[in-house]
Formats: sequence, C-alpha cells, structure tokens
Amino acid sequence: MWELSEQDLGFISTGAAILGAGGGGNPHIGQLRARGCLRAAKPIRVIAPGELADDDLVAVCGAMGSPVINYEKLPRGDEEISALRELESFVGAPVDAVAPFEMGGGNSMAAMVVAAEAGIPLVDGDGMGRAFPELQMTTYMIYGAPPCPTAIADERGNRVVFAGVSDGRWLERLARSVTVSMGGHAGVATTPMSGEFCRRVIIPGTLTLARDIGRAVQEAVMSKLQPCDAVLAVTHGQRYLRGKVVDLERQNTRGFARGSITVEGTEDFSGRQIRIDFQNENLVLWENGQARATVPDLITLITADRGEPLTTELVSYGCRADVLVLPCADLLRTGQALSVVGPQAFGFDLDPVLIGQGQVLAGQSTEL
Amino acid sequence: MWELSEQDLGFISTGAAILGAGGGGNPHIGQLRARGCLRAAKPIRVIAPGELADDDLVAVCGAMGSPVINYEKLPRGDEEISALRELESFVGAPVDAVAPFEMGGGNSMAAMVVAAEAGIPLVDGDGMGRAFPELQMTTYMIYGAPPCPTAIADERGNRVVFAGVSDGRWLERLARSVTVSMGGHAGVATTPMSGEFCRRVIIPGTLTLARDIGRAVQEAVMSKLQPCDAVLAVTHGQRYLRGKVVDLERQNTRGFARGSITVEGTEDFSGRQIRIDFQNENLVLWENGQARATVPDLITLITADRGEPLTTELVSYGCRADVLVLPCADLLRTGQALSVVGPQAFGFDLDPVLIGQGQVLAGQSTEL
Repeated sequence: MWELSEQDLGFISTGAAILGAGGGGNPHIGQLRARGCLRAAKPIRVIAPGELADDDLVAVCGAMGSPVINYEKLPRGDEEISALRELESFVGAPVDAVAPFEMGGGNSMAAMVVAAEAGIPLVDGDGMGRAFPELQMTTYMIYGAPPCPTAIADERGNRVVFAGVSDGRWLERLARSVTVSMGGHAGVATTPMSGEFCRRVIIPGTLTLARDIGRAVQEAVMSKLQPCDAVLAVTHGQRYLRGKVVDLERQNTRGFARGSITVEGTEDFSGRQIRIDFQNENLVLWENGQARATVPDLITLITADRGEPLTTELVSYGCRADVLVLPCADLLRTGQALSVVGPQAFGFDLDPVLIGQGQVLAGQSTEL
Repeated sequence: MWELSEQDLGFISTGAAILGAGGGGNPHIGQLRARGCLRAAKPIRVIAPGELADDDLVAVCGAMGSPVINYEKLPRGDEEISALRELESFVGAPVDAVAPFEMGGGNSMAAMVVAAEAGIPLVDGDGMGRAFPELQMTTYMIYGAPPCPTAIADERGNRVVFAGVSDGRWLERLARSVTVSMGGHAGVATTPMSGEFCRRVIIPGTLTLARDIGRAVQEAVMSKLQPCDAVLAVTHGQRYLRGKVVDLERQNTRGFARGSITVEGTEDFSGRQIRIDFQNENLVLWENGQARATVPDLITLITADRGEPLTTELVSYGCRADVLVLPCADLLRTGQALSVVGPQAFGFDLDPVLIGQGQVLAGQSTEL
C-alpha cells in the first residue's frame, strides 16, 4: 500500500496519457480533479493486486464518452462516485476496492477520485494496459467477468443500472446510447468481482508503470535528452517515425471521436508519410497502404521536444511528434483477447501486427 | 372483479385503438397475444380502481417504441413481464396489480398480457385515457408519481433500470435512446405506486369504455348503421369530417413515427381539406391554417364503412375515413396536465383547442 503524492499525480498524468494510445480522456482535467482530493485531505491509497483479499468486492470505475466532450463540458466531478453508489445499492454490498478500466489521462485519474472519495484503495493495474474505446474491451470481461450489473450516472443525478445484458457488446451499445443522451459524458461503475478473480485477470502494475514513464520523461526533459528515448527504455517500445502532422480528420459521431491523423516524416524520416486511424484511441498505423502496427499494441504520439502526450482530441495540424509503438500486455495477446481487441473487432480486415510476434516494424529506426 | 372473455378482447382491441388517437400500437398483434393467454388458461382479471387496497403496490406496464417497428419485428412476448420482474427485484417487493400506461391497441393488450402472466389483476383505467407518445405524459407522473425506478427489457434478455432521473422528461429521453438501441421496441414497467395513490390519479374505467366502444361499433356494422355515430354516442365526441386520405408523410425518426395526414372532404364535406400532424399519435388538426382540435383531445380516424381504427402506421393513401374528435378526460384538462400534454409540449405554438372549453369546432357538422 502506498499513497499517491501530488508529484506522482503529475507523473501519472503524463505516463497514463502516453499509455492511453491517443485516448483515455483529458489528462489535465483529470489531474486537477485528483489533486483536489489530495488537497481536501482525501488520500489516494494504492494497493498491488496481490494485496486484495480473496473475498474483497472490487468494482471498475471510470468515465465513458467521447473525450472531446470534456473540453467544452467539464465534468461535475461526482459522476463516477454516484455510479459506484448506485452499483453498491444494486448488489447490496459495499465495494472494497476500485480498479480502473484503462490507463489514460482522464480515466486513470477518474478511478483515483472515486477511491479517494469513497475512502477505499485503488488497485495498481487496469483492464487494458492502455485505453480502448469500448466497455467490453477489458481483460475483466474478456476473461469472464459478467458485464452486469453496471451503473452509469451523469451530472444531473440521472442514474441507470444495466441489470442484465446478453453480452459485453450489448452493454457497450446500450450504455453508449444512454451516455450520448446524457450529453456525451457519464461516470461508470461496472464489473463487480471478487479480489481472487481480479488478481488473475487485471493487467498488474500499470499505475506504477505510468508513474515511471512520466518521471522518465520529466528527467529526460530536464537533462536535455530525448523524451522519446526515455519512454522507450521504460516500455520496451519502438519509435516508428518522427514527423509533423500534415492532415487531420476528426468527427464526433455516435459517442466517439473518429478520424485519422496523417504524419509526414522529418529529419531521418523525411520523404515518408504515415496515416493513423483512430476511434478515441489510435487503432492502425498505415504506411504505403500496409498496416505496420495495429491494436492491441499501443500507437501513441508524443511531442518531440517535451514528450507531452498528443491524444486524439489534442493533436492538431502542424504538431511535431514522435510516433511510438509500444507492446501491449501479454493478457491482450491471446486469441481470446484478440477477438475482442484486435483490428477485426474495430472493423478492419487485418490480422494483428504486433511487436515481437514474428512481425518486424518495417519503419523501425536502426537507432532503437 | 371481472374476467375478460375472447369476445371482450375483440371489442377492446377496436375500442382501445379508437381511443389510441392514432397511436398505442398494433391492435392485431396485441389481441393475438392476449388471446394466447386466455387459451393457455391464464385469465385476465380486471378490477376497478376502487377495488385496490391502500397499500397495494401497482406498477404501470406496457410497450415502448415506434408502433411501425412491430409490423416488421414481432415482439417475443415476454418483454413486459421481464421488465416487471426487474422492477420488482429493484424495489424488493412483488407487484399486486398492473395498470396500463395508455389506451391503444397494443398497449392495452400488453398490460393484459403482463397481468395474465403474473397472475395479478389489471386495473380498469389508464394514465392517459388515450395514447400519447412519451412516458412522462401519464396522469400518474403529472400528479406526482416519481418517474423512477423504471425498468425496460428487450427480447434478448437485456434489462435496464432507471434508478434515478431528474424528471419524467429525462426518463423519457434516456429510456427512448435505450429502446432505439434495443431495436425500436421494449417492454416497460414503471411508476410503482400505492393503491391509494393510483385510485386518485388514474383515469378510471377506460378499459370498460374501450369495450363499450368496440361493441357499439360491431353492433352498428351488423345493423348497417354508421359506426361513426355509434362511437360518438358512447364517447360524446364529434365528427369533424368524412373524407379520403390524399397525402401522407411519415418518417420513423428518433424512435417515433412522425408526419402528417391530409384528408380531403367527401359527401357533405366535399371542397374542404384538413391536415393532421402526428408523433405516433395525432396531435393537431388543421384547416385553413388554423388549429381546429389539439391534444389532449383525441383526434382519431376510423374507416367510414366498418369503423376500423386507422392508426398512424396503418393509414394509407386513399383510405376513406371519418375524422373524429373525442373529448379527453377531465384529469388532462388542468393547467398542470396541459403543460405536459398540451400542444406546446409537442412544440406547437398553440393554445389547446378542446371540445367544450369555450371552443367550438368550426367544422362541426350540424347533424352531430
């Protein structure tokens, strides 16, 4: 068990947004919310999955919606705790610990805020080891947690419980339409599970990993080193390209930010051009008509100079970025997981292209 | 307490669809479902509101969605009972009696089916005395029943509970978006209330009224009399026009059938033309640019020859129809009710035009 400091929040905000692979929500607002808890003497206590008791009741908490929304419509802040309280009332038992859905600037912090407000620990880990756009894409559900009950809540006090659904995709479909009707943002509490089950299916240690990434980036910037190298050293990832965003298509449709980012190579990469398709998160990296990296691996953009994560809603024309590909967690590499989070699950007629699975990144820089 | 016979079902199917004012769902499928219960030895027992005990728990059950959907996608049949079971589980108590939302071919029958399946009585009355398109438009909610909890369910076993909402309009908005995601049709169980409260706010006797209308229509047809006159005698309504449908606009958008019907007068009414705007139900009757009848009064079309109700999804080009205006229940004429079910609630910049409230129907035929 450790308690997060304000400095940790800064590191995690950066590191989780890098792990967010373009998604996971607004890192800045998330950090302010978590910092508000610390300053209100509501500590954020973190436990390793191994510290969960077998019969602890763990719930998964975070925010749902298009991350674009949160720049125009700030969360009230109690959406997630309101969803958690409704879930507890529905199952008739108090929740002992909170686990995040996903790593990401917003959703890592949202889970912290719930833990702090409820006075219960946050589990160091998450269900994606990155961010994904849809609710059923967690290792919790992939490996057997029932999708129901799930509670969602908005800033007006509207609270909806999904009491039974045929599967996780139906949960996603129904909860997404409610979220859109709620104005595009809702707090979610889902997947109540035992501590014993959580220990087996959570991707462990990702909060610590996010903190280490964030700290490494800050140290690199202070030492005038390449932040990109610092991230790669911690994550065992690869840099695919350094370049400039020369085109951007982005629409906010059916509850998601969807579109593509085109990056033109600069420096050692000049003369090359890549396109990244996204749905909240970056999904597929294309060069010369071929997929060079795909989900579930992490395709993530950081600014070349300061290592700041460029999420899909923050990236803009002219941004200079390092395009990184980071290996996904082992729990996402099984056939069971790939059917839910591989490129075909997002409508691409593609096999997964993953680091270290017999696939070599054609654009891999020799320095890496 | 009385038990419905198969013959009653036929009468009610016709009468409720006439009271449905264009909406309330498919009378034929509803009747088949209810008849199926009787033939499976599941009686439909009806009680007057006065027979409710003070502390009975009454729930309001029916179907939600665009009535057009049910012609292409038949209900499975257990959507409403599934919603009722989820509601009972949420409130932690069994429901003692079922009341309909509304009168209408589909929704009167849906409530009967729930009562028969659950083995509990159906209250003779409803929350509209007609049909309306939205959930908050019941006398139950208008006069103070909280909109939550409400449960909805589909044919796949998906079950959603609205545990708390800011008001009835938010319930409608959220439940509608879930219904659309469920495929446009869902069973609903809502507004759990005490027998004492139900007695005060229900529009009483509408099931009996529907039966009487249906019986009168059948007797008129068998005696070669005008079915229109038979309906008006029972309902104290007026015939506005006899004519032929010469234009029809109908779209199925955002969960509703919306559009307008243009009827050209024939016989005594030749040379005149009216338009009726609808959203599932007929809302406003226009002639010469003026509103001649509006919600909450009932604007309803029946075939001139056989008195068959022409709901907004059944009406078609060339139909010969009597256009009737029937007075709404007194409980819908208060300021409190008119703010929820008057023309302004449907986006018309109009004061209500109602029978017997100082308003005279300009097109009223002198014979009536």
